[in-house]
Amino acid sequence: MKDIADLEVGFDVPALPGMTEAEIATPCLVLDLDALERNLRKMGAYAAAHGMRLRVHGKMHKSVDVYRLQEEIGGACGICCQKVSEAEVFARAGVRDVLVSNQVRGAAKVDRLARLPTLGARTLCCVDDPANVAELSAAAVRHGTQIECLVEIDCGAGRCGVSSTSDVVALARAIDAAPGLKFAGLQAYQGAMQHLDRYADRKAKLDVAVAMVREAVEALAAEGLDCDIVGGGGTGSYYFESASGVYNELQCGSYAFMDADYGRILDEGGQRIDRGEWENALFLLTSVMSHAKADRAVVDAGLKAQSVDSGLPVVFGRDDVRYVKCSDEHGVIEDPSGALTVGDRLRLVPGHCDPTCNVHDWYVGVRNGVVEVVWPVSARGKAW
Amino acid sequence: MKDIADLEVGFDVPALPGMTEAEIATPCLVLDLDALERNLRKMGAYAAAHGMRLRVHGKMHKSVDVYRLQEEIGGACGICCQKVSEAEVFARAGVRDVLVSNQVRGAAKVDRLARLPTLGARTLCCVDDPANVAELSAAAVRHGTQIECLVEIDCGAGRCGVSSTSDVVALARAIDAAPGLKFAGLQAYQGAMQHLDRYADRKAKLDVAVAMVREAVEALAAEGLDCDIVGGGGTGSYYFESASGVYNELQCGSYAFMDADYGRILDEGGQRIDRGEWENALFLLTSVMSHAKADRAVVDAGLKAQSVDSGLPVVFGRDDVRYVKCSDEHGVIEDPSGALTVGDRLRLVPGHCDPTCNVHDWYVGVRNGVVEVVWPVSARGKAW
Repeated sequence: MKDIADLEVGFDVPALPGMTEAEIATPCLVLDLDALERNLRKMGAYAAAHGMRLRVHGKMHKSVDVYRLQEEIGGACGICCQKVSEAEVFARAGVRDVLVSNQVRGAAKVDRLARLPTLGARTLCCVDDPANVAELSAAAVRHGTQIECLVEIDCGAGRCGVSSTSDVVALARAIDAAPGLKFAGLQAYQGAMQHLDRYADRKAKLDVAVAMVREAVEALAAEGLDCDIVGGGGTGSYYFESASGVYNELQCGSYAFMDADYGRILDEGGQRIDRGEWENALFLLTSVMSHAKADRAVVDAGLKAQSVDSGLPVVFGRDDVRYVKCSDEHGVIEDPSGALTVGDRLRLVPGHCDPTCNVHDWYVGVRNGVVEVVWPVSARGKAW
Repeated sequence: MKDIADLEVGFDVPALPGMTEAEIATPCLVLDLDALERNLRKMGAYAAAHGMRLRVHGKMHKSVDVYRLQEEIGGACGICCQKVSEAEVFARAGVRDVLVSNQVRGAAKVDRLARLPTLGARTLCCVDDPANVAELSAAAVRHGTQIECLVEIDCGAGRCGVSSTSDVVALARAIDAAPGLKFAGLQAYQGAMQHLDRYADRKAKLDVAVAMVREAVEALAAEGLDCDIVGGGGTGSYYFESASGVYNELQCGSYAFMDADYGRILDEGGQRIDRGEWENALFLLTSVMSHAKADRAVVDAGLKAQSVDSGLPVVFGRDDVRYVKCSDEHGVIEDPSGALTVGDRLRLVPGHCDPTCNVHDWYVGVRNGVVEVVWPVSARGKAW
């Protein structure tokens, strides 16, 4: 069997190992396995060289198989994700160290979180509200498990997290005193600066975060509360946290796949990060399905094959055609020279990898033009 | 069993029948079943009163259960959808009349389309390229089936479809002459005008479409080619097609659920269509998960629980709070008066229903505050 036409009706896997890239049913997420492996090895080596643990972000890829590769060749010490239902997928797959890098609220979700350790996973979550401590503690006690808690600091992202050192210390004390819980450190991810284009602008934001975190770590130490984890850092900032002397865990996600929006940010030398620092390893493969007008082609990847929250996708490796418009199931490609024909394939670099991966069921891993693996997007849609 | 906390770890259905709305795990799509049923009955009655067939658009909801309700109480004569893999879901579920209202290109997809009639479904697709006719014909002959083809006219949307009557006639002739195919009529959906705010602006665009379609129908009749189907019409235009005297099938989708972007368009009297014509039946239920700052709450529905391509969601039934920012897993709610508390629930009206439904696995149907049904988003992610 070498073609999806040979499969039973209703079995809609987009590819089978051994196919060529030209035979993959589109639209489909394609991973360039060589590029992916280089990205993973590079970040792993960076973290090791800088004495940082690397807790990779599973919310980006939502894939047990990608995580396994990150553990095997990329130096990952564990995973973080954003939802309890995501954490369940990773814990059930045998991941041994799982941080829900987010608040877990509501009786049902807290209860499910407290049961994760029964699957063999060290289980951590973030806290920014004293009322949550009692809720988490009661659930852990009820299930005879332990939940490790990081106090979340809002170091500039303007979302969850407390803003003052006194609040950090009060929460840490409450966690430390609560049965079934363990105070494990700080969560201080500055999400709002990751996509600022200029390196100096990103550094200025991170300097503020580092100062807040350092003050908190010192105040906690003065109370006898040590931080096993001081975590944060994304693809646009990990060198700042690594140089801070106060963070000890990175939580990068997008470095593995890259995307068009991240790729545009500049490194210290003013070069785009997708022109040297990281390679595009994730592509949305699409086919031309109509070319009824001479100067525009229509491709089969629209809003249901990607998220355009951070801009339209970019056609990889071609300057002669441009993706200019998106509707539910169609993309319009400007093709002024009439270079494209029905059936032609384009590799698109998605605007934003995380929510794009979340609409797909499969990653098709390709090497030298041949499909090598077909991996499920294991935690796709796990939203609560 | 009445709580998701009682379920096995990894079984992440967001609700069970009999729960209250307050117990649903969020974020989650909720259907107000009373409002949904009123919308379905209203469109069914409209179509019947105007002598139009109603081929509801399954690409919007991607749900076998919603379609069944549309057939049962909403006058649906069949379904349309946009992809072969979607069509397979509906055909396997027993839907007897399935139009892929789109081009089907590439050997594998064409082959799968040609096998749909073996499931008992009348199978139709659109064509805008003579080269496609031979491909479809060969596949139908190979499988001993029949594919009915509509010639797609680009009547203003600027995507697929031919633009001249002579092209329409040439394609219709080719289909009529091709073994295994049957010329079934015209597809003429003007997608680009559906969301224009002003009724008069929409009418002006549709007048152009109607003129194109009428010319094509007459030219085909002169060749002895009758159109069983002249299809088109969306939630922003169905009254124009119904009054045209030339269309005979409507293909509305969004009327069933409504969304914030569609809701803003105005009817003939200048009233928003979500203030009388259609009811909001689809909501993205979300919970406040953090309120560490006095004037802003953070909710658990971000980019992975919705598509923001057509704008941010609107908080239903409340003027005191506003959804102002969206990241992957978080939404920021302006809460100037501090009205919200952690655990509070908000019903959001998504900006755009189609791609929002496509990220979820479940619809939770609620009546009088109680969960009545939990329906899978049957064709979610079926993108090829």
